[in-house]
Amino acid sequence: MKFNIQHQDTQCKARNGLLKTDHGEIETPIFMPVGTAGSVKAVHQRELTYDIRAQIILGNTYHLYLRPGLEILEKAGGLHKFNGWTGPILTDSGGYQVFSLAENRKITEEGVVFKSHIDGSRHHFTPEGVMDIQRVIGADIVMAFDECTPYPCEWSYAKESLELTHRWLKRCIQQFDSTESRYGYNQTLFPIVQGSTYRDLRRISAEFVAEQGREGNAIGGLSVGEPAEMMYEITDHVTDILPVDKPRYLMGVGTPANVLEGIALGIDMFDCVMPTRNARNGMLFTSEGIINIRNEKWKDDFSPVDAGFHSHVSNFYSKAYLRHLTISKEILAAQIASIHNLSFYLWLVGQAREKIRSGGFLEWKNQMVETVSRRL
Amino acid sequence: MKFNIQHQDTQCKARNGLLKTDHGEIETPIFMPVGTAGSVKAVHQRELTYDIRAQIILGNTYHLYLRPGLEILEKAGGLHKFNGWTGPILTDSGGYQVFSLAENRKITEEGVVFKSHIDGSRHHFTPEGVMDIQRVIGADIVMAFDECTPYPCEWSYAKESLELTHRWLKRCIQQFDSTESRYGYNQTLFPIVQGSTYRDLRRISAEFVAEQGREGNAIGGLSVGEPAEMMYEITDHVTDILPVDKPRYLMGVGTPANVLEGIALGIDMFDCVMPTRNARNGMLFTSEGIINIRNEKWKDDFSPVDAGFHSHVSNFYSKAYLRHLTISKEILAAQIASIHNLSFYLWLVGQAREKIRSGGFLEWKNQMVETVSRRL
Repeated sequence: MKFNIQHQDTQCKARNGLLKTDHGEIETPIFMPVGTAGSVKAVHQRELTYDIRAQIILGNTYHLYLRPGLEILEKAGGLHKFNGWTGPILTDSGGYQVFSLAENRKITEEGVVFKSHIDGSRHHFTPEGVMDIQRVIGADIVMAFDECTPYPCEWSYAKESLELTHRWLKRCIQQFDSTESRYGYNQTLFPIVQGSTYRDLRRISAEFVAEQGREGNAIGGLSVGEPAEMMYEITDHVTDILPVDKPRYLMGVGTPANVLEGIALGIDMFDCVMPTRNARNGMLFTSEGIINIRNEKWKDDFSPVDAGFHSHVSNFYSKAYLRHLTISKEILAAQIASIHNLSFYLWLVGQAREKIRSGGFLEWKNQMVETVSRRL
Repeated sequence: MKFNIQHQDTQCKARNGLLKTDHGEIETPIFMPVGTAGSVKAVHQRELTYDIRAQIILGNTYHLYLRPGLEILEKAGGLHKFNGWTGPILTDSGGYQVFSLAENRKITEEGVVFKSHIDGSRHHFTPEGVMDIQRVIGADIVMAFDECTPYPCEWSYAKESLELTHRWLKRCIQQFDSTESRYGYNQTLFPIVQGSTYRDLRRISAEFVAEQGREGNAIGGLSVGEPAEMMYEITDHVTDILPVDKPRYLMGVGTPANVLEGIALGIDMFDCVMPTRNARNGMLFTSEGIINIRNEKWKDDFSPVDAGFHSHVSNFYSKAYLRHLTISKEILAAQIASIHNLSFYLWLVGQAREKIRSGGFLEWKNQMVETVSRRL
């Protein structure tokens, strides 16, 4: 994997880069649609490419490991072959889902034992095992196995957890570096900075992660309930420490405003279920602001969902029609809203890249944060 | 509306025709995807056009009347403007849904009083009212308000019901012909032959319907639980009576085999929820036969869903991937299966048209009925 920074903003830490993987190039900053179980919910693969213009998608190790399972994925020749998405794929480590979805989880030095939320079956995730699993899934970018602390979190627990995460990281690296890439293309491992909302712990973690000298680095444990200002402060603190010449991935973030602020703080990669999950609940992120399409005010608004940028579904369907579909629980409502929201996120980061390249990013960002945050 | 028969099969009653409406031409025999509440479930409008190659879709008066309601549809400028489908639309009369979905329905000479299955609100459908409703929805083809008898049905009830349906038909025609087409394009009314499974009643009804001299005629009250052979016998009997030079629409039919047999019996138009409803349950109609995609045998079958004809989704996605999505309750499963099944139905009637034109329809039909009916 190669990463080149092509433009560094002069007023803030925002940068525009190019990340080259064996499955194609990624322009950064980028937003990665989440394809939990091998599918970005309610979106066809060709829509990812041609409507949403996604450049990389995410898969969830926990979900894919449980279903369809490694045997099927390996027989298929990896997730790309299985689901037909030919661009790069990043997989998380499954740690977050083990803590949020699985039952009866028990964490030890060795790893985590848990029961599947699907059938109650018992499983064991270790740093080594999770590296092997992501290799078999066929991720281009593999994430380290970590513990994601909740918010709020005591300093002492955050420190203890951080130390475990660091010991696990060494084991991840050891395992990853002693195994081969699968399916004939290169795979790379990103470590994750933890440390909750504590600047001292975040410094320790960022320095430890930086020392590993991997091809990219991630920031985890944010956007878990803390105030946005706190997230920005910690992000700012960590991006001051992480190497400038490696891509930085802020995990699980966030709203359009969060993404814009993250870009200004030197983040290159984002992922979040918000655009798709909220779409399924009728919340639209648009170039004019946030819309709850269930609201009665849209019932006879025959204007396009969002005419503010190029997107077929956003221009083709009206707010009144989408409201009707949403109220009527039609599947097409989830389809339209999901494509729209993801198209909007990808358009937004594309605009950010352009502003970084042409100058004036910061001013545009400050104005845009306001626009995309208002409720219509 | 103009209908021309372009080819009449010499071995059976199958014919290939062209039905011209103000929203475009329809090649017959044709299958019409059902867009109950203004959306063919799980299918984008452009997919209807470019993947499924639908030439006309159906809307349900009962559903559209309740939601979004006539006020919204009228403000939108009709259903075409509302949902963005620019081809012809046929609406049913709502009678069938009133009997199958609504609560506390009460039938009188005047019409039917019922309670909405959505919110329990009380409504009144009359032949006159249902003509006005379909005019406002903006259907190209409006269906008469009838009573669809269940199966089995006593001869005496079938006769009584038939007579009511005929009196209602006269009122439908009176109302329809004394009102104007809406939105600047032509609307036409199809009457419906009833009479349950009784040849004598079907003859009376078919003759009565034929006498009205409308631009097309429909056969209702079949595919409601009677054996397929009985459906074919009654269809054969009725198409012997209905005028040869008008399109004949067999309502609510059916399986791929039912459609092929119907074509051989002189039917030109079909509609059924089966391809989409069964799709959502994991049943696929393919060029090789019927697949239950949930079956474990498909778990590592990485061959396309159906490579037997041109359809993007059917060729792009594998059986194993679709099985995984179905088992995982991913929305994309419903999307793929719905597009596939409808594409298959439209491909099948397209093949039938070609065989009628080129000769050899009957032999092909007999072979195809066997192929499409077998369980894989």
